[in-house]
Amino acid sequence: MTTGRLEAFSDGVFAIAITLLVLEIKVPHTADDASLARALVNLWPSYAGFVISFLTILIMWMNHHRIFRLVRRVDDWLLLTNGLLLLCVTFIPFPTAVLAENLETSQAKTATIFYSGSFLALALVYNMMWQSIAMRGRLVDMQVDGHLVRAISRQFALGPLSYLATLLLAFINPVASICASLALAAFYTLPGSLFHRPRNG
Amino acid sequence: MTTGRLEAFSDGVFAIAITLLVLEIKVPHTADDASLARALVNLWPSYAGFVISFLTILIMWMNHHRIFRLVRRVDDWLLLTNGLLLLCVTFIPFPTAVLAENLETSQAKTATIFYSGSFLALALVYNMMWQSIAMRGRLVDMQVDGHLVRAISRQFALGPLSYLATLLLAFINPVASICASLALAAFYTLPGSLFHRPRNG
Amino acid sequence: MTTGRLEAFSDGVFAIAITLLVLEIKVPHTADDASLARALVNLWPSYAGFVISFLTILIMWMNHHRIFRLVRRVDDWLLLTNGLLLLCVTFIPFPTAVLAENLETSQAKTATIFYSGSFLALALVYNMMWQSIAMRGRLVDMQVDGHLVRAISRQFALGPLSYLATLLLAFINPVASICASLALAAFYTLPGSLFHRPRNG
Amino acid sequence: MTTGRLEAFSDGVFAIAITLLVLEIKVPHTADDASLARALVNLWPSYAGFVISFLTILIMWMNHHRIFRLVRRVDDWLLLTNGLLLLCVTFIPFPTAVLAENLETSQAKTATIFYSGSFLALALVYNMMWQSIAMRGRLVDMQVDGHLVRAISRQFALGPLSYLATLLLAFINPVASICASLALAAFYTLPGSLFHRPRNG
Repeated sequence: MTTGRLEAFSDGVFAIAITLLVLEIKVPHTADDASLARALVNLWPSYAGFVISFLTILIMWMNHHRIFRLVRRVDDWLLLTNGLLLLCVTFIPFPTAVLAENLETSQAKTATIFYSGSFLALALVYNMMWQSIAMRGRLVDMQVDGHLVRAISRQFALGPLSYLATLLLAFINPVASICASLALAAFYTLPGSLFHRPRNG
Repeated sequence: MTTGRLEAFSDGVFAIAITLLVLEIKVPHTADDASLARALVNLWPSYAGFVISFLTILIMWMNHHRIFRLVRRVDDWLLLTNGLLLLCVTFIPFPTAVLAENLETSQAKTATIFYSGSFLALALVYNMMWQSIAMRGRLVDMQVDGHLVRAISRQFALGPLSYLATLLLAFINPVASICASLALAAFYTLPGSLFHRPRNG
Repeated sequence: MTTGRLEAFSDGVFAIAITLLVLEIKVPHTADDASLARALVNLWPSYAGFVISFLTILIMWMNHHRIFRLVRRVDDWLLLTNGLLLLCVTFIPFPTAVLAENLETSQAKTATIFYSGSFLALALVYNMMWQSIAMRGRLVDMQVDGHLVRAISRQFALGPLSYLATLLLAFINPVASICASLALAAFYTLPGSLFHRPRNG
Repeated sequence: MTTGRLEAFSDGVFAIAITLLVLEIKVPHTADDASLARALVNLWPSYAGFVISFLTILIMWMNHHRIFRLVRRVDDWLLLTNGLLLLCVTFIPFPTAVLAENLETSQAKTATIFYSGSFLALALVYNMMWQSIAMRGRLVDMQVDGHLVRAISRQFALGPLSYLATLLLAFINPVASICASLALAAFYTLPGSLFHRPRNG
């Protein structure tokens, strides 16, 4: 398995998962003109979930590409951890739908915990995949210096911590947790806040 | 991030979003043979929305490709604005579904405003992306002359104006607004009406 | 626009449309074990529609690839006719769903006419696309001899005639029309029955 | 048709089918906070089906790639058997949904038989495709030694036998059959348990 082929397949899965998110925004059924406008506004939990999940998958895809530029050779462990990552990525539309349908009900807390928990699991698997690359020197191109590998490791370790924080916040205030997730996704998407890139990048 | 990789991912998202549009055409449930034929005809708002959204995304994809032929290097701003563009593109199936279900109801005006407004947002983000390329000379290949860049800028500026017109028309007559959107999409799709291409194109 | 890029985008749309077909097979809701088995058997119109549409799109994709090997340069007309072809391809899941839900009802005739009519439209657009290539010598590689171009033209002209036949048959006997469509798809899929390929193929 | 093109199209179909699986997990509709948590737990048949089908398609994709590295030339038989394989792969989301909705009902046995039977069919078609390559020496690169071809043939022959076993187990105990399918998928996914790879791999 070449890295090119693994990347192309992973790209496909990322692109499809990110596009399927829109299917979770359900068309509202209302009775008159005024209420459609209100119903569209009331769908804000769907929009919030759509935007957060979209940005999160987008960031994961961008980092995935950056990581794979450092990889020379694909072995079974990378295939396995990359497979688990794709499993988590394709799952994301489901917790997004659960969140969208429950954020304004009495079940908001459970939905938000489930949503943040899914991102926590995704971030943990992401770190697993990175470690399967970084800890096995033979996968990393010798021209990549150890400083960069350690810098990326530190950066990626922040992911699980951030999502653990939003998960804990969900127990106290679901809407605040969602706002934190949105802020987190926006922060990582904004230029300059992406992780330190290779010098020859 | 190479332009090739960013283009491939964007192509994937365009291709999936354009294909998901069909899921918004709901199979009618009717009682007898005659009524199925009538029900299929009565789905014309779904067909209209499908065709307009399809052509619009198709035109955006074609122009996306033409733009990226001028780009030498991808920086964080282009990644960000391209990401926002994909966010808007993947959203399009939702306003299309809202339009399809409401164009023949008392809620037609709201639905059409929402539909045209989504295209207006898409066109504005498209211009943002182009400006993030054009205004930062280092992204544009030096062999591309300034005349071409300015010609494209003028062309793209027409997009938001056109969609603003259909949006305003929606307040007066929703069906007229949809016809205008269809005419607009057809006009841009027809050969020769695409924007001025590079000489070596 | 290079042929490579247009082909890659078209391939993506073909691959997605062919995979979305399965969403039209609805999980039956039944009361006991025996009835689930019967319900799964009773879904045969869904399976038939799935297989016919799958094979038809698969054949179109294979021929699309064969055609594009003859194409040197993409112009606006090819972009336009290829775009119309993709529009028809992405539409196919809808008539497939209409057929699946109505083949065993009193509405079978209308559904089958709509289904066959969609394939007829698809075949006509396919011929339009081929003609936009074949009639404009500058698109066809000079190493391709005129005999091959005329042979393909004759082969493709059979498509609309075949689907016109199944459409007319639908007026008399819907199930016979579907069987004919299935036989047609199987015939074109079987090795040796594909159109005469270039000598250097 | 080049192998590269056939592989790219097949990869697309694999990637889309694997991502569509999530659409079969239905958002539960519940009344209060406690019950959403319970409802999410009660969805375990959906999760099990999602994971098993995901891993199975993933393994098929990885083996598909390994096989195609041995292939020099695509002929009509390979096109046909590969097409049948894709037909079966795109069908998988349907039996997965049938399983998910019925594993905890009185219809569990029928659903599990249908699910395992689909995988059995998939494995048989997979072997057909491999045989269409292996039995026709002209498709296999001369540098690939006969030992490898026979080793792969033996490995792949285990697939139908395994799925036949889970199918028979489904008649006795549906949940045990699903656990066996999950164990099987996990076993094949784990490093080292994949089939013997080419030396120059």
